[in-house]
Amino acid sequence: MSVRAHYLLLSGGLDSTTLCAWVRDAHPGAPVTAVTFLYGQKHAVEADAAARVAAFYGLSRQVVELPAIRGSALTDPDRPLPEGRDLSRATGVAPSYVPARNLLFLASLASLADVNGPATLWLGVHRDDHTGYPDCRPEFVAAADDAVRLGTQHGLRVAAPFVQWPKADIIRWGLDHGVPYELTHSCYRGLAPACGVCDTCQARRAAFAEAEATDPLPYAACD
Amino acid sequence: MSVRAHYLLLSGGLDSTTLCAWVRDAHPGAPVTAVTFLYGQKHAVEADAAARVAAFYGLSRQVVELPAIRGSALTDPDRPLPEGRDLSRATGVAPSYVPARNLLFLASLASLADVNGPATLWLGVHRDDHTGYPDCRPEFVAAADDAVRLGTQHGLRVAAPFVQWPKADIIRWGLDHGVPYELTHSCYRGLAPACGVCDTCQARRAAFAEAEATDPLPYAACD
Repeated sequence: MSVRAHYLLLSGGLDSTTLCAWVRDAHPGAPVTAVTFLYGQKHAVEADAAARVAAFYGLSRQVVELPAIRGSALTDPDRPLPEGRDLSRATGVAPSYVPARNLLFLASLASLADVNGPATLWLGVHRDDHTGYPDCRPEFVAAADDAVRLGTQHGLRVAAPFVQWPKADIIRWGLDHGVPYELTHSCYRGLAPACGVCDTCQARRAAFAEAEATDPLPYAACD
Repeated sequence: MSVRAHYLLLSGGLDSTTLCAWVRDAHPGAPVTAVTFLYGQKHAVEADAAARVAAFYGLSRQVVELPAIRGSALTDPDRPLPEGRDLSRATGVAPSYVPARNLLFLASLASLADVNGPATLWLGVHRDDHTGYPDCRPEFVAAADDAVRLGTQHGLRVAAPFVQWPKADIIRWGLDHGVPYELTHSCYRGLAPACGVCDTCQARRAAFAEAEATDPLPYAACD
């Protein structure tokens, strides 16, 4: 019987870094490959954080360069990065939504994994992103799981254990499990220290505050 | 209201070429983009056929180069192209199955299309491939439709009108609708004239015979 393999979508951000700890915890000793995608994102520097995190957890690592995905503030030069929005009241699809990104990433993972045998594909989506990102919602995860299972020779599966969690709960769980958040990168501007004002810096800072914890990353703009 | 766009997965083979005629017939005047993927296939020459077919039908055309997909006789140098098999009795996954290819292609189409507005993604899969290719089965098409619909901002849809048809019926319909089969390419070896003995040449010749029609392509090995 072949050992089940694990492929993890590792951006180098907070959520997918916590997912590394989750997978290591749930499947000790199992083979885990962390895959980072380059898709024309302005903050491609996140791939460096992914390398640090993969090394910390002793994961195999792969970087896959896809054709650039257009139509997002994260990729298009003429679309400004979102900042200063009141995220608690934001409605509709976020400017930082990247068209069909998660399905494309999962399909790419499936294509890598289905060569070898049974595998689970891990995705770090969470509840705070349900409104702004159609491909972070539980109904998408369930449908993607079906599509991946039915469209592969080894019946691969998709798992997204945080899909119903708020980001603050991910941080709480991560801090309880020694996740090295100082190695991660979130800022859409790709800056270090992080800008502190773009949508994702804001969301990260708000989640640390909600978790009553201190973000180990320095921010350029701290109030 | 935005006009619904159409994105068609055009390999340059018989099935996807017939699909061009189908979409033109069902949606006269609608914008149609034919997308051809390069994924390390040995018969990349099929992209030339796709260009001829797209020109014939006056479709916009895009070629997308993906990272090579491994683990298939169609892509791996050390896996021989399948030939001389009795396809009517073949069981299990075909040597020419390409891991998660159709999901990857649909996700890429979704990523192109979801930038602009509502769209349908068209796929030329058919019944004769249900056994050998998990990603040609109706249950996969239905799941992929859900995943694409739920994972995109414009609720894109997947359509595969031939999914329950045998290949001979596609040819019959195509001949009734003037499909220029002389422009297409099928041979896994990428040869012209086609080799006539690889799995796909065999399947094509058998389907023309079953449709009691003459394949306009010349074959090197004709019995």
